[in-house]
Amino acid sequence: MLAARLHEYTHDMSDGLSVEETDRPEPDRSGDVVVSVEGAGWCQTDNHIIEGQWADYVPQELPMTLGHENAGTVVETGEEVTLVSEGDQVVCHPVQTCGICRPCRRGETMHCENDSFNGLTTDGGFAEELLTSERAVIPLPDSIDPVDIAPHADAGITAYHAVKKAVDELNPGDTAVAIGIGGLGHIGVQCLNAMTAADIVAVDLKQSARELAERCGAGVTLDPATDDVAAEVESLSDGVGAAQVLDFVGSDETTALAPDICALGGDYHIVGYGGHIHEPAQALVAGEFSFVGTLVGQYSELQELVALVKRGDVDLHTSQHSLGEINEVAEKLEHREIDGRAVITP
Amino acid sequence: MLAARLHEYTHDMSDGLSVEETDRPEPDRSGDVVVSVEGAGWCQTDNHIIEGQWADYVPQELPMTLGHENAGTVVETGEEVTLVSEGDQVVCHPVQTCGICRPCRRGETMHCENDSFNGLTTDGGFAEELLTSERAVIPLPDSIDPVDIAPHADAGITAYHAVKKAVDELNPGDTAVAIGIGGLGHIGVQCLNAMTAADIVAVDLKQSARELAERCGAGVTLDPATDDVAAEVESLSDGVGAAQVLDFVGSDETTALAPDICALGGDYHIVGYGGHIHEPAQALVAGEFSFVGTLVGQYSELQELVALVKRGDVDLHTSQHSLGEINEVAEKLEHREIDGRAVITP
Amino acid sequence: MLAARLHEYTHDMSDGLSVEETDRPEPDRSGDVVVSVEGAGWCQTDNHIIEGQWADYVPQELPMTLGHENAGTVVETGEEVTLVSEGDQVVCHPVQTCGICRPCRRGETMHCENDSFNGLTTDGGFAEELLTSERAVIPLPDSIDPVDIAPHADAGITAYHAVKKAVDELNPGDTAVAIGIGGLGHIGVQCLNAMTAADIVAVDLKQSARELAERCGAGVTLDPATDDVAAEVESLSDGVGAAQVLDFVGSDETTALAPDICALGGDYHIVGYGGHIHEPAQALVAGEFSFVGTLVGQYSELQELVALVKRGDVDLHTSQHSLGEINEVAEKLEHREIDGRAVITP
Amino acid sequence: MLAARLHEYTHDMSDGLSVEETDRPEPDRSGDVVVSVEGAGWCQTDNHIIEGQWADYVPQELPMTLGHENAGTVVETGEEVTLVSEGDQVVCHPVQTCGICRPCRRGETMHCENDSFNGLTTDGGFAEELLTSERAVIPLPDSIDPVDIAPHADAGITAYHAVKKAVDELNPGDTAVAIGIGGLGHIGVQCLNAMTAADIVAVDLKQSARELAERCGAGVTLDPATDDVAAEVESLSDGVGAAQVLDFVGSDETTALAPDICALGGDYHIVGYGGHIHEPAQALVAGEFSFVGTLVGQYSELQELVALVKRGDVDLHTSQHSLGEINEVAEKLEHREIDGRAVITP
Repeated sequence: MLAARLHEYTHDMSDGLSVEETDRPEPDRSGDVVVSVEGAGWCQTDNHIIEGQWADYVPQELPMTLGHENAGTVVETGEEVTLVSEGDQVVCHPVQTCGICRPCRRGETMHCENDSFNGLTTDGGFAEELLTSERAVIPLPDSIDPVDIAPHADAGITAYHAVKKAVDELNPGDTAVAIGIGGLGHIGVQCLNAMTAADIVAVDLKQSARELAERCGAGVTLDPATDDVAAEVESLSDGVGAAQVLDFVGSDETTALAPDICALGGDYHIVGYGGHIHEPAQALVAGEFSFVGTLVGQYSELQELVALVKRGDVDLHTSQHSLGEINEVAEKLEHREIDGRAVITP
Repeated sequence: MLAARLHEYTHDMSDGLSVEETDRPEPDRSGDVVVSVEGAGWCQTDNHIIEGQWADYVPQELPMTLGHENAGTVVETGEEVTLVSEGDQVVCHPVQTCGICRPCRRGETMHCENDSFNGLTTDGGFAEELLTSERAVIPLPDSIDPVDIAPHADAGITAYHAVKKAVDELNPGDTAVAIGIGGLGHIGVQCLNAMTAADIVAVDLKQSARELAERCGAGVTLDPATDDVAAEVESLSDGVGAAQVLDFVGSDETTALAPDICALGGDYHIVGYGGHIHEPAQALVAGEFSFVGTLVGQYSELQELVALVKRGDVDLHTSQHSLGEINEVAEKLEHREIDGRAVITP
Repeated sequence: MLAARLHEYTHDMSDGLSVEETDRPEPDRSGDVVVSVEGAGWCQTDNHIIEGQWADYVPQELPMTLGHENAGTVVETGEEVTLVSEGDQVVCHPVQTCGICRPCRRGETMHCENDSFNGLTTDGGFAEELLTSERAVIPLPDSIDPVDIAPHADAGITAYHAVKKAVDELNPGDTAVAIGIGGLGHIGVQCLNAMTAADIVAVDLKQSARELAERCGAGVTLDPATDDVAAEVESLSDGVGAAQVLDFVGSDETTALAPDICALGGDYHIVGYGGHIHEPAQALVAGEFSFVGTLVGQYSELQELVALVKRGDVDLHTSQHSLGEINEVAEKLEHREIDGRAVITP
Repeated sequence: MLAARLHEYTHDMSDGLSVEETDRPEPDRSGDVVVSVEGAGWCQTDNHIIEGQWADYVPQELPMTLGHENAGTVVETGEEVTLVSEGDQVVCHPVQTCGICRPCRRGETMHCENDSFNGLTTDGGFAEELLTSERAVIPLPDSIDPVDIAPHADAGITAYHAVKKAVDELNPGDTAVAIGIGGLGHIGVQCLNAMTAADIVAVDLKQSARELAERCGAGVTLDPATDDVAAEVESLSDGVGAAQVLDFVGSDETTALAPDICALGGDYHIVGYGGHIHEPAQALVAGEFSFVGTLVGQYSELQELVALVKRGDVDLHTSQHSLGEINEVAEKLEHREIDGRAVITP
């Protein structure tokens, strides 16, 4: 079968992955599931992986097929699989978990001690077929097309996971700020809108992104190039500040906003990454705010996100591309030329 | 009456405060309370205030009487005060709150929008008498001496507040790490011990501090000069890391430990300050940990701490000094020559 | 001034209250506030009070002016009041609290140890003027008319308080059941809809109430006279049951539904009352569900409800009546002839 | 092998179970684990099962080997088991779970949609060997003897689960009441003591039980035959009431205490069962308290309880009996002649 594989780390996105013939996967263990991939979202993290930025954080062995946002149809199952059978449509949580370690027992599947991560630590779904397991697939209702939902497997669940932490602390009338309304951010704003009665402020440099934010439920949008974000947030919140901030960018510039826009007791969620946090410890003490790291999301959270999609509360803004166009997609994202999410259809 | 007052910011601790005659305070509003100060703890934050380190964070007008850890006897009350009357012994929460703003309504008294903070934004208790209010005093049971409990008004409540946040996430058998076993840290370890069944690891450069930690309930102590703290924490926690870390130091060196010692999903509480946090955003994402700022604690938390003291669960390690020795105490703390907590007895 | 007062307990609603001349109230303490009442909602609890059903639970001294759902304009204030001044429009939380006891400190204002409750333990607002305090009034934005918001002071805050507890446990796609879509229930359904992405099932015997529920955001409505409620809930929730049930009726018949409709780990919130709970302890064990009592709501929750109203998320279905018609209103409610909420306009 | 089996429901405990030869179990699925049973605790629920009291709540097919509190040594494993291997000592969570349904994914293993429960819905461990699975066994540290820990598999985890819910709401100085200090209650008091700084009040009719409670950490004990429990709790808690009550009895008499001893906002946890709850809905509204059902506990909670045992925080009071004595044990428990917990050693 055809698969888009990374052979060595590079900063040249035009030639990052090689589309080549590989062996079809076969179920090996009793819980294995093979999925014919119909949609595979391209993610900023794929660019980071190609550049080698994850090599310090997780074990990686090259060559590896990338792709961690997958959905498609089950084609083969291990002998003890009961959740799905051949022909079922599924979305694939990117993390294959053991179900045996303590984090799995507690539902913290992202912290599985024996996990593998599609397209990050094991072969992913920029390929015709993907080997995964019963513990990593979620059956889809008939009303949802796998191509449409694929990016939720990572972009969606990451945005949802961060929002879900924030929602617990958002009362009606509180101010929530979302920074960066791209692939993740536009999902995050919709989730906030569906799950809270907070007033949503969206921040993005691009006008098209700000317009997207408004359609997704933001009451106010700010352009950091021309608006004084901290002053606007202070004014919009009657001097209180933002109870919760979701930073889908994670640059030096965005994280530096934290002490000026967070309310006392507020949280600044780090979803995007690339830059650094640099603050005096005293700023966190005087403002009693937190920098909250957030990593993808639990299997059960992806179930909840599928429910949101089924209810019509979250809609993805996507474009489709063939496997052969994959490096072009990588380059375009690098230059911020993609609105919403690009989906590869192998 | 005599009071120790700050006239200008200085780095010379030997001459920071001037002990001088000032007017006795009188109750002005219906809820005011005047307390004859019997104990007033000296705090590292007093050194920071003298150096001007808080001038950027809060409104300060000099000269000002310092002292935010006070306890004593009520000598006069406003006409509508019902909680206490003349002769009652009380500990004074350092924050005088309005009871009317939304944070006060929600119990988040530290975030009061109309507060004044003894010895930080208004005259404090390094003086014979202190003007405070009914909303800031807690009656003491007969079994507790004001001199013994005074430092709990800030050191105690700050340590307790941080511990209380941590406790919610500490299951039996989890690893909790306390860094810096001085005035705050030795209270924090006792609170952890009383309120959880977590395994406590204490980290300090001084041998006397590590011994104090053991008496307070730490199961293991580490000397960062000779122990590899990250490796030890990993080993003690069976590879999981510390579910909760309480950093009572807050230096560049200590906060840099966070990504290496926090468990996935763990929290790193910033209690002490002085240094900076400097981490790639990706570290917080990959490790899904948080830097949690923490600021003193609520009035109701000081009630809970008084209950811990009454139960015998928390014991303060203190030394007593007269008002005239106050600059000497400041210098000694600067040179880390004070174990536990120094209390001024005006 | 005119006030509608209860002189003795009676089951005859046609003559429950006497509309008579009384003295205008005057501010006595520094925090007192006198409000000219523009709207005062009539509540099922007023019927219960007239019948003497609350005499066992709270201290009552007759005669007493009833009325606990009030809004209007400030006409006079005590000398230390800062939150409002003459001419400000306010909604009145029914509970006047001390701000000094531990529950007040923790934000649990409903549990104030020194409270008085308008129209239940002290004179209420079925009168031209109401004596209350700064701690019990919430300034209204210009866009909200006091007459429209008055019933939120009890019906609204009670429904909101119960919903807020439920919201914490409702994930997208979960099933929430609301039983009884009258004055409280129709607010509760709107709050659920604004604050969660749960699927809402509304249960009521009256067709007009079920239609109101649909307009308020219920996806499914059931008529217990013809539908098998337990079977329908099981089917709608894919066999899981209702994660959260809000019972705005509280009769023997409704509470008996709990073991059959609650999901494992679910909560059955008792908001309405009148009947009994009668279940084997084993039912709660085997189904691991809870009966959760709920009592009005905190001051800060009324602030949040005002924010919901301002956002347009919650709309009241009301009818207006003069003070002279008050006993007629009482009778109509007794016979379930009032849809939504009746508001007296003194 | 020998096993103690129930052939038909009976109220005659002297002849409830038949000790007879049955086939040894063999691993059938890839995750199966066979355990040689060394300790199997006898539980009040075993009496209830023999009487047929669970037949209405769960599917049961007779004959069935009873016994749900088991620990022993692994003797055989399915081919994909990695957590344990032959010779490992384990304690057996009574519920065998699928790991695939949504409750399992969320860590709510007690709510597994495809579970079987040892000795309740499938053959249990009053037998030489028990067939269970990798998802239901917890490896023991060397320092713990399987015979000593067996009763924790149900009595322990049930008490711990209830306490863990209560702990979240118990601040230092709050009052916690434990009713019934038998097999479960004496574990519950120890857990409360290890995990909180609440003041513990234990209630039991038997003097030996009250003495046991004191050794376990109760500060005060009450005898309901001679003490006015409600008045004592009110006095001990300065009029506030019990923030949390754990009822390990669950009779009509004990549950009737709820409105009189629960603090406003408090919880009354139903752990034991047998009687009924019968209260006016208004009592729950006026007192804003909850009746909280509680059912055994999660796998991860049994891990936490093992940690408590390893730390020395929880100690079981047990007696040992051979398989042949099993009906005698049943009779003695019926007549309340067993202190602590009886363990069968097959």
